[in-house]
Amino acid sequence: MDYLQILERIHKAILPYSKEGKQADYIPELANVNPDQFGMCIHTLSGETAAIESADTRFSIQSISKVFALAMCHSIKGDALWKRVGKEPSGTAFNSLVQLEMEKGLPRNPFINAGAIVMADILLSHLSNPEEDFLRFVRAVANNNTIEYNHSVALSERSTGYLNAAIANLLKYHGTIENDIEEVLHFYFLMCSIEMSCRELAVAFAAFANHNRPFDYAGITLTTSQVKRINAIMQTCGFYDEAGEFAYLVGLPGKSGVGGGIVAIYPLRYSVAVWSPRLNSKGNSVMGIKALELLTTETAESIF
Amino acid sequence: MDYLQILERIHKAILPYSKEGKQADYIPELANVNPDQFGMCIHTLSGETAAIESADTRFSIQSISKVFALAMCHSIKGDALWKRVGKEPSGTAFNSLVQLEMEKGLPRNPFINAGAIVMADILLSHLSNPEEDFLRFVRAVANNNTIEYNHSVALSERSTGYLNAAIANLLKYHGTIENDIEEVLHFYFLMCSIEMSCRELAVAFAAFANHNRPFDYAGITLTTSQVKRINAIMQTCGFYDEAGEFAYLVGLPGKSGVGGGIVAIYPLRYSVAVWSPRLNSKGNSVMGIKALELLTTETAESIF
Amino acid sequence: MDYLQILERIHKAILPYSKEGKQADYIPELANVNPDQFGMCIHTLSGETAAIESADTRFSIQSISKVFALAMCHSIKGDALWKRVGKEPSGTAFNSLVQLEMEKGLPRNPFINAGAIVMADILLSHLSNPEEDFLRFVRAVANNNTIEYNHSVALSERSTGYLNAAIANLLKYHGTIENDIEEVLHFYFLMCSIEMSCRELAVAFAAFANHNRPFDYAGITLTTSQVKRINAIMQTCGFYDEAGEFAYLVGLPGKSGVGGGIVAIYPLRYSVAVWSPRLNSKGNSVMGIKALELLTTETAESIF
Amino acid sequence: MDYLQILERIHKAILPYSKEGKQADYIPELANVNPDQFGMCIHTLSGETAAIESADTRFSIQSISKVFALAMCHSIKGDALWKRVGKEPSGTAFNSLVQLEMEKGLPRNPFINAGAIVMADILLSHLSNPEEDFLRFVRAVANNNTIEYNHSVALSERSTGYLNAAIANLLKYHGTIENDIEEVLHFYFLMCSIEMSCRELAVAFAAFANHNRPFDYAGITLTTSQVKRINAIMQTCGFYDEAGEFAYLVGLPGKSGVGGGIVAIYPLRYSVAVWSPRLNSKGNSVMGIKALELLTTETAESIF
Repeated sequence: MDYLQILERIHKAILPYSKEGKQADYIPELANVNPDQFGMCIHTLSGETAAIESADTRFSIQSISKVFALAMCHSIKGDALWKRVGKEPSGTAFNSLVQLEMEKGLPRNPFINAGAIVMADILLSHLSNPEEDFLRFVRAVANNNTIEYNHSVALSERSTGYLNAAIANLLKYHGTIENDIEEVLHFYFLMCSIEMSCRELAVAFAAFANHNRPFDYAGITLTTSQVKRINAIMQTCGFYDEAGEFAYLVGLPGKSGVGGGIVAIYPLRYSVAVWSPRLNSKGNSVMGIKALELLTTETAESIF
Repeated sequence: MDYLQILERIHKAILPYSKEGKQADYIPELANVNPDQFGMCIHTLSGETAAIESADTRFSIQSISKVFALAMCHSIKGDALWKRVGKEPSGTAFNSLVQLEMEKGLPRNPFINAGAIVMADILLSHLSNPEEDFLRFVRAVANNNTIEYNHSVALSERSTGYLNAAIANLLKYHGTIENDIEEVLHFYFLMCSIEMSCRELAVAFAAFANHNRPFDYAGITLTTSQVKRINAIMQTCGFYDEAGEFAYLVGLPGKSGVGGGIVAIYPLRYSVAVWSPRLNSKGNSVMGIKALELLTTETAESIF
Repeated sequence: MDYLQILERIHKAILPYSKEGKQADYIPELANVNPDQFGMCIHTLSGETAAIESADTRFSIQSISKVFALAMCHSIKGDALWKRVGKEPSGTAFNSLVQLEMEKGLPRNPFINAGAIVMADILLSHLSNPEEDFLRFVRAVANNNTIEYNHSVALSERSTGYLNAAIANLLKYHGTIENDIEEVLHFYFLMCSIEMSCRELAVAFAAFANHNRPFDYAGITLTTSQVKRINAIMQTCGFYDEAGEFAYLVGLPGKSGVGGGIVAIYPLRYSVAVWSPRLNSKGNSVMGIKALELLTTETAESIF
Repeated sequence: MDYLQILERIHKAILPYSKEGKQADYIPELANVNPDQFGMCIHTLSGETAAIESADTRFSIQSISKVFALAMCHSIKGDALWKRVGKEPSGTAFNSLVQLEMEKGLPRNPFINAGAIVMADILLSHLSNPEEDFLRFVRAVANNNTIEYNHSVALSERSTGYLNAAIANLLKYHGTIENDIEEVLHFYFLMCSIEMSCRELAVAFAAFANHNRPFDYAGITLTTSQVKRINAIMQTCGFYDEAGEFAYLVGLPGKSGVGGGIVAIYPLRYSVAVWSPRLNSKGNSVMGIKALELLTTETAESIF
């Protein structure tokens, strides 16, 4: 398949949607991004790469970072991880406190904010230098040593992150996190602040797509089975309250971020990343979802 | 692969779990089933079939029938179906009224009871002879004209089905169902009462696994894309409050029933059905889930 | 005090609100009532009665009947009643299924629909001729043998009463009601269909206001303490989701009905009934609440 | 009436309950209180005072302080207060986040923690020296200049007050509080830390019982109608999830605190305070509720 042609056809086809949706504006760093950008990169396991438009522009990966955190936590804790966080879709908005209160502080899955805050807590407890170790792992899996946190984004997030602070306090109340709340929140927001391009994300997620290759990056190792299970969780929980819709339209495991990025993988075939800042009402990139829907339609292939 | 050997190894491996869980006992017809039965049948798209133990014993397919109902509704209404029912995982038990009340009577997905009751209503409105037409479709897709409803099961279910009656009344209150409540409930319970064996279910679900073959049974037609989307919904919503767990452990789209049956498909590879009446606390067959987990482990293949 | 003058001043003062709100229209019998009617009657324990406007027009007392049902149930079951129904304000709309599901079928209090349906069930279990016995009690407490059910209202309510049917089914599912659902619903709606005038209601509720006088009507007896406790429940639970507002504005125990009637009592002083069909968004009579607010303001007396 | 004799009879009658319940132990300052203490003081509007046992021992008044905060806020904001906080009973535990999230950050009433945190925010915005002004008001209404905050209690509360911090963050997220979260929480916990004896509380609450006397303390003024309305809110919302039970058993407006204190008033008759640290499962003093129940039984008088 000529993936470059496919991506270009997709880009043309989704242009009518280029002004739909609204970028995240709860912090100035996200509000000030030019919302009219679009990038896409596909990386096949046979070694092909196709990239179009702003595929090399870095953006705030935000919740996509939760997949990296899950990989580290799963490597560190194994199946004991699931005593700290569930693996069921939430069925409610990504930030719901209701479910958390009803379920006594056990987050439904690692990709809702509560779950990711618990993962931040786990990493703080188990890593000697959590901030360095996390960044080293992401750089290793993306094979790129220039990837960085954006500390200004992290600080902005914390200064207005009342809902996440409410969640962290509720978790602490239920005894679900061990470390100091401020440290946990700081690390949580820092992980979310990592900036990567579509090309870098496509490379990084190839490690999840290619579960037959040993997963071993900066000391973080996962078995084939563990990688596949992370993929399963991306499938069922990767898109907040729109996981079913994404499975229906796209049919690939993936993860979105409020910065407008989406990654998806076709196990043993390819990884793909797309970015466009305008979001739909569920917090997922409008053009990103359209592009991925067209990708599985054009290639006539999905996991289903 | 020698699937018969694989199934036999699986059966041996799960024997230690043969007394775990408790069969459904809310109606005498289910309570009186011998709980120690086990059957399994795999049907590959290349034409192989392997079956072990009680693979030819018919049992009450219960909620597995919701996949057949969804196929009919999707064929009849196309994407307009999604105005009547959602396609997101529910995040709560299969019979929750809470979510239904909060979301003004729009069921979260077609596989929770509320969603299936809405599908029963749709079929009543659109089919000339709903009971005959539904049975004819199931017989066609299973290529077996001896499949029957169990009217005694359906009547028993209705006589104690207070929760489903509450759901149907709440749906009616919100204007989400059009027909008479008793007719809708009768038809809903009748669909659930169909009896099939593992072998028959494996054949029937091959139609979903093999989405490259035209789907056209008793006048019900679906495009390739529609079949894949039904598979996607099985993946995200097929196991009540255990959809994430099933995706994690098994990694295949599927659907379970309270009679102890589970079907799963590996798109373009095979369909598989397993049956054992003892259920876990989420209402899914204990040995069924174990058997499918081992199947994807043994074959080292899943959609992830 | 010259209560007639007070009532007339109140009536004049609330005329500006006479077109506010909207009468109940979910059944034709209520929709067809002339919404511009207003009646009010006060009955002091010293024997004075003052009545204005349509104080002698009978209307559907609806939920006001729940106080009569509570009196009977409390007389029959004593404190054992509270094993079947709670006595806490609901904090949610009068017909919420959410709370009922979360609390496993135990209704929060006797005045939400779920609680009143449980009381209907209790009366069906304990009375030899429930319909006759209930009417005989209401007639006795109101000292008027012409009071009647409106069977046409009761039938209309049942034919569209999907939400109450959902509640009754959910109660049955949780084992909270003993009798046949249809019998319970029929009796529940029949009790609600009783028609009384403001004057008749004022007389009837004098029995609750005057708790020093023996409460003994048609064989239903209550101690002083029991009457006071029924008054307490009227105070905390008598106005659905507006109990706090009514306590705040009026400061008397009372009970409203969707027919536009409200009764209130000032213990050891007076009982008062007011009627006007137009309801606010919480289902309480707009002019009724205004009139009672002015009554306690004019007389400068309330229980607080 | 000889109130001293009555109180002594009550004390004797409730001795069998003296070991029931469990004192608050979430901070050392409360955990270290001798749980076997009991005090009670009644103060009639005609000037009589009767006090027994440890009626002069000061204890942490905790949530009883919310009545003082409400008096100040109502004086400052008038009816505009109700745009910031509701006045309906909550129907759920005092610290529930569920309702708060569902109702977009508007607390149900001023006596649940969320409502009191909003009141702390209002006082911070409107008072020049909030800590001094609040204490001056409490001292004035209690006519005692030795009343003090317990700063050590306030600090302990803050250091473990994760749930209240979660609430404050959620309020801030919804824009319901204006000031810095830490300042609001500090002031909230400080108000709760005030220590008073039963005798001092009885005097202070006489100001609410005697609504015919001008309410004017340290510049905080309320009309008769405003005082009565505060009493109404005590009636419907003063006992967390046990407001109905308290109305049923005792029949007086009141307010409890987790330190084991309860105040109640009989408008135009008396105020009463009782203290005993052991709490029931709803967080209210076991002996306190028993004592007040007997008080209205013994005197055969309540507002109902």
